[in-house]
Formats: sequence, C-alpha cells, structure tokens
Amino acid sequence: MEPGPRSRPAEPGPCVSASPSAGAALPASGAEPGSRPAAVAAVLPAGGCGERMGVRTPKQFCRVLGRPLISYTLQALERVCWIKDIVVAVTRENMEEMRNIIQRYGHKRVSLAEAGATRHRSIFNGLKALAEDQPDGKLTKPEVVIIHDAVRPFVDEDILLRVVIAANEHGAAGAIRPLVSTVISPSADGCLDHSLDRAQHRASEMPQAFLFDVIYDAYQQCSDYDLEFGTECLQLALKYCHTKAKLLEGSPDLWKVTYKQDLYAAESMIKEKISQEICVVVNTKDEESVGYLLKEALRNELNCINITSTPLDLPGRDTQNFLMAQCYSFIHVNVVSSDSHETQRFLSIIEESSLPLLYPVVVVLVCFLDFTLVPLTQKMESLVWIRDLAKEVKKSNVLLSGLLINHSQCLNVVLERGSETKQ
Amino acid sequence: MEPGPRSRPAEPGPCVSASPSAGAALPASGAEPGSRPAAVAAVLPAGGCGERMGVRTPKQFCRVLGRPLISYTLQALERVCWIKDIVVAVTRENMEEMRNIIQRYGHKRVSLAEAGATRHRSIFNGLKALAEDQPDGKLTKPEVVIIHDAVRPFVDEDILLRVVIAANEHGAAGAIRPLVSTVISPSADGCLDHSLDRAQHRASEMPQAFLFDVIYDAYQQCSDYDLEFGTECLQLALKYCHTKAKLLEGSPDLWKVTYKQDLYAAESMIKEKISQEICVVVNTKDEESVGYLLKEALRNELNCINITSTPLDLPGRDTQNFLMAQCYSFIHVNVVSSDSHETQRFLSIIEESSLPLLYPVVVVLVCFLDFTLVPLTQKMESLVWIRDLAKEVKKSNVLLSGLLINHSQCLNVVLERGSETKQ
Repeated sequence: MEPGPRSRPAEPGPCVSASPSAGAALPASGAEPGSRPAAVAAVLPAGGCGERMGVRTPKQFCRVLGRPLISYTLQALERVCWIKDIVVAVTRENMEEMRNIIQRYGHKRVSLAEAGATRHRSIFNGLKALAEDQPDGKLTKPEVVIIHDAVRPFVDEDILLRVVIAANEHGAAGAIRPLVSTVISPSADGCLDHSLDRAQHRASEMPQAFLFDVIYDAYQQCSDYDLEFGTECLQLALKYCHTKAKLLEGSPDLWKVTYKQDLYAAESMIKEKISQEICVVVNTKDEESVGYLLKEALRNELNCINITSTPLDLPGRDTQNFLMAQCYSFIHVNVVSSDSHETQRFLSIIEESSLPLLYPVVVVLVCFLDFTLVPLTQKMESLVWIRDLAKEVKKSNVLLSGLLINHSQCLNVVLERGSETKQ
Repeated sequence: MEPGPRSRPAEPGPCVSASPSAGAALPASGAEPGSRPAAVAAVLPAGGCGERMGVRTPKQFCRVLGRPLISYTLQALERVCWIKDIVVAVTRENMEEMRNIIQRYGHKRVSLAEAGATRHRSIFNGLKALAEDQPDGKLTKPEVVIIHDAVRPFVDEDILLRVVIAANEHGAAGAIRPLVSTVISPSADGCLDHSLDRAQHRASEMPQAFLFDVIYDAYQQCSDYDLEFGTECLQLALKYCHTKAKLLEGSPDLWKVTYKQDLYAAESMIKEKISQEICVVVNTKDEESVGYLLKEALRNELNCINITSTPLDLPGRDTQNFLMAQCYSFIHVNVVSSDSHETQRFLSIIEESSLPLLYPVVVVLVCFLDFTLVPLTQKMESLVWIRDLAKEVKKSNVLLSGLLINHSQCLNVVLERGSETKQ
C-alpha cells in the first residue's frame, strides 16, 4: 500500500514534456494504460480564508521564501504543457492581489473566476468559466478538467497525467493516501461512538480529474445542501451521474498546506528542491582549470546532488545555458581575484533573469589570493567588497557568500569567509 | 470546532507545575472540571520502523537539530511532574540505542519494555510493565495511564491534564482533531464506494488516557486479530469494557511526525520555540549600561519575543539564573572588547551546563572598538579571535556570532561581522 522512499523531487523549471498539441499519452512512470485527451484544463479553488492557519492572510497567499504559496502551485501546473487553461477562483477582495501575483511572477494560461462562499461553489464558478453555454465565455470547453488545491504546491506531472487518463476512461478519478490517524465518529455527547477500520478507508487528496460533462452536469444538478456542506467532488459525480471514480495512490508530496507547521515544511521542501543542482561557473574553458577540478571534487563529496559546470563565456544565448537549466545554486570561481568585472557580469545576468523572481538564488563566490604576496589591507578590501556586493544583490533575491582562498598553499584551505546572508 | 490562533508555544524547560506529590487538579486553561488522580504513568510505543518516512532510521530516532525526536517527546512528558513513570516500548535491536539516548540526554523516570510486532502489542507490553500482577515488576501500578506517541513531540501539560482528568471521570479519553481531508471508502476494484461526511468524523490523535484497570483489562481480553490489525486504543476500551471514551479537541501542535516534510516542520517549530526568549548578558549591574539600553531597544523592536537581561556577576548560583530559565538565545555585551576573559567565562558556563545538550545555544557576542583609535591589525585580530572561538564552541553545540561595533560613532553602526555558523 505504501509507496517506497520518495524519489528525488522534480526540478523546478519550465515545461519538460511534449508540446501542447501532442494528443497521445506521454510516457510517464506509473501512468495507467490509456490515452490523454487533447483538451485538458484545470480549476483551482482559492477562496479559503485560512482560518486553520491561525493567521490573517489566507493560506494560499502566505509567503514561502518570499513568494505566495499559490504561485508555486500555478508554476507546477504551468510546467505541464498539455494543461491549456487554469481557472483560479478567488474572492472579490483578493481578485486584485491575484492579478498582481499573475503579473509579477509571469503566470501564463491563468484566468480568474469569482469564488463562492464554499469550496463547491468556487469550483462550480470555475467550471462555468470553462463551459460553452456561458455568455461572454472566452475559454474553450475541455474534454477533461483537473480540480486541484491552491495549497498543494508539490503536484507533479506524473500524478496529473494518471488522474487525467483515468478520468478519460472512468469519467472521474482522484488521488488518495493512506490515513495517518484513525478516524472516529463522535456521539452527540462528545464521546466515542465508533472508530473506523483504518485499512478500509483512505484520505481523499488532490488532484482529481473528471470528464468535463460529468462534473459540470453533477454541479448543475446538485442541491444547495451539497453546495453548502459537501467537501468531495468525487461524491458529487457518484451521486448525480453514477460515475464511480477511479482512485489512484498518490505520493506524500501531495499533502495540503493547512497549519503553520505545513508552511515551515513547504519552505524546507522548496529549499531542498532548489538545492538539488549546483552549477559551477568558471571563466575559462580549460578542463584542467580549478573550476573543473572543483566540480569533480564536489561530485565525489555530494552524491545526491547534480553538479554541472559551465564557462561564463560561451557565445550567444548559450552564455545563459545555466539559466535555461533553471538552476538556483551557483559557485562562481574567480581565479584572478582582482577580476571583479567577471563577477559583476555573472551577477548581472542572474539579476536580470527571471530566476531570482521565482526562488532565492544562492551564489558562492570563490576568489584566490596569495596571502604571502598581498598586504593585509588588500585582504580586508576584498572582504569589504564581497560584503558590499552581497548587500547589493540581496535586494534582487540573490544570496551571495564569498570565500577567499590562499592560493599559494592549498585549494582546500579556507582562510576567510564573508557572507551577507545564508539561505 | 476550530481552535483559534495558536498561542505562544510553551518554553522548553524543566517542570513548571506543582510537585509530583500534589494530588489535586492543577489550574490549567481549558481543563475539564474534575480531579487528577495522584498516580499517573505514561506508555510510549516506539517500536515503529519508520517505513513511511522513506528513510532507514525509524522516525522516532531521526535527529532534529542533532537530537533524536523521541528525546523531545520524553522531555515534554518529563516536564509534567505528576507523571511518575514513563514506559517506552522499543524493539530489541533498538534497546541499546534507547538506553544511550536516556543516558546522554539525562532522561529521568523512564523505563524500557520490549516492543511487540504491532502497535497494540507494544502498548500491551508497556502496560504489563506497570501492572502489579507481573513478576519482577519494579514499577507501581498507576490509577490512570497516558498513552502517547513517540513522534508527537509538541504535547503540552494542558492537554495531558485534560485527558487524565476526563479519563478519571469517564474511564477513557483521547484528543481529536478535525479531518484535513475527506475520508473515503474504496471498493474492491479500486473505485470510490462512498465518502464520509467530514463534519461527522474526527481524526483520533494522541495523547489518550485510561483508568489503568480498564485498558489493561481490554488488552487482556482482546483477540489476536485486534492485536495484529487494530489501531485504536479507545476502540478496545469500548469493545471489551464498554467504556465510552470522552473526546477532547486538541491543538494542531499534536500532529504526528510521519513523513519527511514533518521532520522539517518539527525542526522549524523547535527553532521557533527556542527563539521566543532572548537573554542579554552584561558585565555590569549599571542600569544606564549599554546592555540595559540594548534590552530596552530590543523590547521595542521585537514585540513577540521575551527579552530579559542579567549581569554575569551575581554571587552564588544566581550567576547562572539564565540557565535556570532554560533560555537558549543570548546576547553577550562586552563593553571593553579586550576583556576576553568575561566572554570565555560566560561561554564556559554555557558549555558546562545541560543547555547545549538539549538545543543549539545561540550566542551573539557584541564587542566595542573605537576604530579611530585601534589599528587595522587589532580589528583583524578581534575578527580572527571571534572566528576561532566560534569554531571551538560549535563542537559543544554553541553557535557563536560576533559583532564589532565602532564605539566612537554610534551604537547602531555595525561595522564588521564575523560568524562561524548561524542557526
């Protein structure tokens, strides 16, 4: 029942799969046999007020490493090219904030709908925006619609594809997880009435997917009581359309950010994701260079981390191939420490890219000085220079640390360290 | 149904309530009317193998800020003076490790029992160690026994007292929480059979408490099937002793460390707890001193944090009153920077105490130098001295940072910062 150890988290980055026009199912580990429909959209109810978090900001707008949680979720959906439209249902008072988030973080394919007073009403409004029977409808009705939560940012393409294919076959599908706690039913006097067999029950998680006509039909038929007090879309499909949803085991990553401790956990998970790859940036193509040697040394030391290296000087857009790889951790090796121009140029490329908009970018600057030759004042000046640079780039969400290494002795002797902020 | 915003977490520290001999109920917010029995013990099943964590170490032994998770839970129970014995059920292969943990972190009142193959068998073994009908029994049978999880380290005295008082009145009691996800029941073909009404169900959490005779009787009667596949102690009391447990709403802090993200969350929660109090340590009693002024300034800046100050030089054991308060964050103000003796003495007191054994102790050392008078070499020497000191005390889990402040100008101008490690 339990999945094995978690695999390495997916790198944050742009869409990694085929183009949106591809109609056939993509090969993905664990995907059900079947095919993915060409037209898929997603609805994201985001009208909650976050009362369980114990803070005034609705949890989907809480900041994680400086960025609203919902932006991470949108990014996760946008990486999947075959999701054509994403409809977010937000309350009227949060509409402006949501528009700002979309603009600031460059989200594409996102439309807004007004949230209702309950989760079901918000989803229904999102579905209406996709339906063809609506006046002034700008979106195309999809064959299959994904319903996901704004506060589950770690959804990956694999589970999205699996629910979509299963929904195409069964009419409805949803991710489930084993129960963490036993579920009980209290009696009216606040005492135990009975407890449920944990092995016979599952937690219903997100994402879920439906044939659009099935779930839209269910919402159109369903009672005010359902809209007000219901919590389960799969149940609506069953009750009103006799569609028995296929249940698919999801990973622990699908958990829902609900309480304050979940925000802490989300932050650590995101830090882990963006620390999985380190790019060593060197100012030479020489394979005997210190940058190359450092990369090899790091590869031997850090088994679980992907270490790449790139010269800063490749012509054309290749210069920025580390940007294309959506890497967020860099070691910039500067053999000639006085060559601050190279460092400035590298930091400018980072600052001008969209990288620090999405995640904090960590740069470790490695400079070499021969301490037997340079006077103490030059050492001090280098430290002050690194510190001032760190202060400056921190404003752009770039976290710079510096290492001054005594070149005359040994590469491993770290003699001074100046750091403005560590991630 | 939902509790309000989380209150400030309880400070980690020694027992804060009355002595173990006090028989009457302690005043505690939210406690049920009723009285607490004199003899209370706790059983902690800790035989799990942590398969859901995706790591080889059982989750109760996973390290959080360097210390095994179970040690935090034991500390939380030990702080409650009226819990007389704590029986931990561990597997034979982890017995030695558990003994080491008890010895290393100075746990008191803890006895070990051998875990069984399932949770219920482990609890049963723990109860047997407390029962009076056992040969070579060294413990006294309690009136009420608390059952808790080794992986719920944030349990506080309030909920423990509430479940104990309710168990004394009803025979059994347990903490519950609202469901985070809807619970569903799958059919044999992996499709949705039905979903449960979320409002009618609760997650059964820990701690739970029972009249000892009730739960011991239930375990003695219960079937092999129950022992093998059951998950709910409250259900055993109901089924075999017709005891309907009282259900008490617990706080979100009671959550169970189950997955990797929960370990991250636990670490952040613990960091938050130990950052709630800062003690400014000064080498003078003068209320006009910079230490006193700093304390006042910090009080105005950091509203949510408790700021105290103490001179280092109080006679007798009062010298260490910051140790008695179990504070883990210090600012040591050294007006005369050359007086490294004072700093060394303060760091020695911390290192020799039990503080850094339980949590990382953060010390910010503030030194004053008149940069117009001292040569650059002296500034460098001070930086090197702080860095070397930081390296040294880090071995004892003390995280030292240093600030050199230009005294001739203004207290707020921070001119150099040397830090070995930040928490």
